[in-house]
Amino acid sequence: MPITPEQAAEIDAQRAQPQPTLRATAPGIEAHLYTALPVLDHGFVRVIDYMGDDSAIVQAARVSYGAGTKHVSNDEGLIRYLMRHWHSTPFEMCEIKLHVKLPIFVARQWIRHRTANVNEYSARYSIMDREFYIPAPEQLAAQSSVNNQGRGAVLEGAEAARVLEILKTDAGRSYDHYEEMLDQDGKQGLARELARMNLPTNIYTQWYWKTDLHNLFHFLRLRADPHAQYEIRVYAEEIAKVVADWVPAAYAAFADYRMGGASVSATGLDCLRRMLKGEAVTQETSGMSKGEWREFLAMIEG
Amino acid sequence: MPITPEQAAEIDAQRAQPQPTLRATAPGIEAHLYTALPVLDHGFVRVIDYMGDDSAIVQAARVSYGAGTKHVSNDEGLIRYLMRHWHSTPFEMCEIKLHVKLPIFVARQWIRHRTANVNEYSARYSIMDREFYIPAPEQLAAQSSVNNQGRGAVLEGAEAARVLEILKTDAGRSYDHYEEMLDQDGKQGLARELARMNLPTNIYTQWYWKTDLHNLFHFLRLRADPHAQYEIRVYAEEIAKVVADWVPAAYAAFADYRMGGASVSATGLDCLRRMLKGEAVTQETSGMSKGEWREFLAMIEG
Amino acid sequence: MPITPEQAAEIDAQRAQPQPTLRATAPGIEAHLYTALPVLDHGFVRVIDYMGDDSAIVQAARVSYGAGTKHVSNDEGLIRYLMRHWHSTPFEMCEIKLHVKLPIFVARQWIRHRTANVNEYSARYSIMDREFYIPAPEQLAAQSSVNNQGRGAVLEGAEAARVLEILKTDAGRSYDHYEEMLDQDGKQGLARELARMNLPTNIYTQWYWKTDLHNLFHFLRLRADPHAQYEIRVYAEEIAKVVADWVPAAYAAFADYRMGGASVSATGLDCLRRMLKGEAVTQETSGMSKGEWREFLAMIEG
Amino acid sequence: MPITPEQAAEIDAQRAQPQPTLRATAPGIEAHLYTALPVLDHGFVRVIDYMGDDSAIVQAARVSYGAGTKHVSNDEGLIRYLMRHWHSTPFEMCEIKLHVKLPIFVARQWIRHRTANVNEYSARYSIMDREFYIPAPEQLAAQSSVNNQGRGAVLEGAEAARVLEILKTDAGRSYDHYEEMLDQDGKQGLARELARMNLPTNIYTQWYWKTDLHNLFHFLRLRADPHAQYEIRVYAEEIAKVVADWVPAAYAAFADYRMGGASVSATGLDCLRRMLKGEAVTQETSGMSKGEWREFLAMIEG
Repeated sequence: MPITPEQAAEIDAQRAQPQPTLRATAPGIEAHLYTALPVLDHGFVRVIDYMGDDSAIVQAARVSYGAGTKHVSNDEGLIRYLMRHWHSTPFEMCEIKLHVKLPIFVARQWIRHRTANVNEYSARYSIMDREFYIPAPEQLAAQSSVNNQGRGAVLEGAEAARVLEILKTDAGRSYDHYEEMLDQDGKQGLARELARMNLPTNIYTQWYWKTDLHNLFHFLRLRADPHAQYEIRVYAEEIAKVVADWVPAAYAAFADYRMGGASVSATGLDCLRRMLKGEAVTQETSGMSKGEWREFLAMIEG
Repeated sequence: MPITPEQAAEIDAQRAQPQPTLRATAPGIEAHLYTALPVLDHGFVRVIDYMGDDSAIVQAARVSYGAGTKHVSNDEGLIRYLMRHWHSTPFEMCEIKLHVKLPIFVARQWIRHRTANVNEYSARYSIMDREFYIPAPEQLAAQSSVNNQGRGAVLEGAEAARVLEILKTDAGRSYDHYEEMLDQDGKQGLARELARMNLPTNIYTQWYWKTDLHNLFHFLRLRADPHAQYEIRVYAEEIAKVVADWVPAAYAAFADYRMGGASVSATGLDCLRRMLKGEAVTQETSGMSKGEWREFLAMIEG
Repeated sequence: MPITPEQAAEIDAQRAQPQPTLRATAPGIEAHLYTALPVLDHGFVRVIDYMGDDSAIVQAARVSYGAGTKHVSNDEGLIRYLMRHWHSTPFEMCEIKLHVKLPIFVARQWIRHRTANVNEYSARYSIMDREFYIPAPEQLAAQSSVNNQGRGAVLEGAEAARVLEILKTDAGRSYDHYEEMLDQDGKQGLARELARMNLPTNIYTQWYWKTDLHNLFHFLRLRADPHAQYEIRVYAEEIAKVVADWVPAAYAAFADYRMGGASVSATGLDCLRRMLKGEAVTQETSGMSKGEWREFLAMIEG
Repeated sequence: MPITPEQAAEIDAQRAQPQPTLRATAPGIEAHLYTALPVLDHGFVRVIDYMGDDSAIVQAARVSYGAGTKHVSNDEGLIRYLMRHWHSTPFEMCEIKLHVKLPIFVARQWIRHRTANVNEYSARYSIMDREFYIPAPEQLAAQSSVNNQGRGAVLEGAEAARVLEILKTDAGRSYDHYEEMLDQDGKQGLARELARMNLPTNIYTQWYWKTDLHNLFHFLRLRADPHAQYEIRVYAEEIAKVVADWVPAAYAAFADYRMGGASVSATGLDCLRRMLKGEAVTQETSGMSKGEWREFLAMIEG
């Protein structure tokens, strides 16, 4: 279970006291505030705070464009225009703060997104909780034989059982030894900043993470993508739903132009134009490598 | 006058409709929201939005420090501890968005603070307003004879009058010519993106500017400093008052440890220690250059 | 003329003394070092330093991929793969430092690229030179009647002459008055930090600008684009040639996947797929707005 | 041993071929290039590339200060002036690229420095090596009883032996199980991106890390500090030696103004001034908390 009854009570308390504010408010995300949206076996995403809404994007863009928006008849149209033409700064005018509980190996991928603010639980200062990510059976996938960083078929039977046994047993033993080294009951044990090195990277950590909407979209594009590792993708997918409730017009534009869209190279454009004129382009006549041609076909065939 | 009656009415409308929210609210800054705080002759600072309060800093820090805050008895103490030990990430958990109207030469200094989000009024897209910064007589200072980037005594009499005449006349003529080149009434005039190059850098522009509290403190430390140019300092001072109302504990810690504090070099520490033991240290025995010694004396003499 | 004979002599001196180094060197860019590549009437771009070459990108990527590069048979292929799949970090491992002389209104667009290091000539500390950008006659374009931030036909005859006269006369007069206010010969004149506000934004400034290859590509994609203002585009085009000489494989991949490529939305992909199957898609059946459909047609028709 | 004979041979090859360059070269760091400077039991720091030297800092600053450096008689003096007055941009004009091998728990602290470029060895794509950090006996410290994130006395006898046994045995077993789950010899084993979660955070990873001198100084100030965890401090100390050889004047200024210096609060300055006038200030009359007073005394007593 991701949160304790005490924590659930704290969340209820946070949700019980609406305050009046003159700021822009977005009802769709107010409904999510503080609630723990479960991810994986013990993880969660909680919205702690937000700044701005769809109108805040338009409002910021209109400073940069003055009174000249007469040709874009409404906010939604302007937001689509901004997204299509890579005018990213108005999207930076919205901000979100999340509390996330996640395995360390996921946190290590996540932190590579540098344009964000982070406060992580400190294992130098505090003792880690005994909570480890153990994949659900349907996620116990074999190494892909075609993609060096992907997964293949799901493991079954004895092999799957053996993997689960290893993960559970090693996690438990590592934690027992962590506690033994800390040894707080009698004399002073090993320093916490040293003892923690014995813990595997499927142990859960947590952090506060704050970023703007433009950088969040970039995060979602990379991490909610089918090529992202499943264990971070499920966080991105949960966040994507929150964003759709928070800034529906911006999210719809993002879904159309980024998530559901594609990039075509100059070579690919040339092939497309030839194909639209009726030419039967093949990999050999495309100017692309085999891998690139395969990806191109996947794009145009959907 | 920095804003028109129409704009004042829009601001009143924005202030008229409080909404309920579950987010952290800071009453001290709610009172400032949307209001135009006047700066210089036509400029202003308006708070458009904010995220977080003093408690949000503590809350983020406590994720990074877990349950281990028992030795810091209260929020204010923890905030002071964080500021003193350069733990900057919890301060990044608060965010503010401002609408600022400012002369271009001030905007050029301001934009050097890179960790911020900006949407500026576009002179490619729109026509600039006829508003120029003309210094008040008491700001018409001569070049400093001791500081290559500072001001000396205030100009007086005919010299002051001549400077004001130049600034006003050149600004007016440049703008007349700008309008003439744009020539919108009859045929198509010169492109706006070209015509604007004729305008001097004391013309007013405006932007939305959003940053986090840590980076805002850095901005204030450099720009509310007596060595900063007066024309940006007055903006920083106005913002500093807003911040003091928004996050009083964080601002008090900042005032003590940063704005009112000082950095001492290893050489300076050595001198201090010798002086506290009764030694009469001089520039010659200090190990410092003359300039550095002068700054050191200014620091310890207050 | 962008540089003085004294400056030309300094550049010759810098180019006269090759030193041995163990670092990666890129002969194609060594040929450009220090030389002033002229841009506009008085501007230039000078390469001051660089770090890395095409191999440095591969080398960094191979740390992240260990010994597993067996499926990408050569450096060029790996570089294309990285570019195609938005693996941007290896491109960040190359760095370039430029000395640029440019009009202030161009500098104001340029500085919006925040992930870069900048040292600009200080008009608080020093006196600006009397050098202004005056457009060549073929650049004196009218405001576009279809694009709010674009140019239309070139001005001609008396109108063009009048614009040139205004730009030259106002620049000259502003500078005369700038000098008069500074008034250095006799008594102390107006502070430099104040006097500079009288200067128009077509005066030239200069700076050192340093960025990594990934961010430089982003700069080039936006600023070497036909929609960028001509006066910044010519700088981007000059830099693009330097980059092509510096990292030819990375530049070729960038030209194919970014500069010459395009983004297609989910809606656009759907239209493409229908068209490739023989359907006659129109704006009405496309799901796109008129503006978007026009851009879509321009893309597929080339 | 941090590197294999094959790797040593590759390094020798890299060092064998000096090339002529027109760029600024710094002989002091050329001597370090590519060489693996050992850190901890299996880690290292290798300088892969650098840009700039002390003169490059001055050169960049002189663009921002034009011809106006007559009052600072030499490069060293100007560098000290820039450091003392927090003019950080000229230091950003130097850049360094390192190859670092380090335990994951150290990498997790290191990556919090966001203004840097990183390429890390991928455990999704490749198989991790069997190399773990096992502390030397003199580093096996107990938890500090006064500092929640510090170390106390060194463990001894049976307790130390037990800790070492746990760390070694758990690391070995985790790695055995990692290999067993990957099971490459026969059929397809567990995906690498999943199997790696069983590995503890004292396993070694490696990355290319590139940053500018200003941000590197910030890293060194925090990580070469006595309060930093020993296991990252030793990396910082090794890098500090390299920097001292690379940019001796900048490093000396950094050592004086940052590493060896201190920050004094407004309250602390007031106490200092009173003490220098002969007053016997105590904690009670200082206006400081007990903890702050203790830190203040430590500073002035050295």
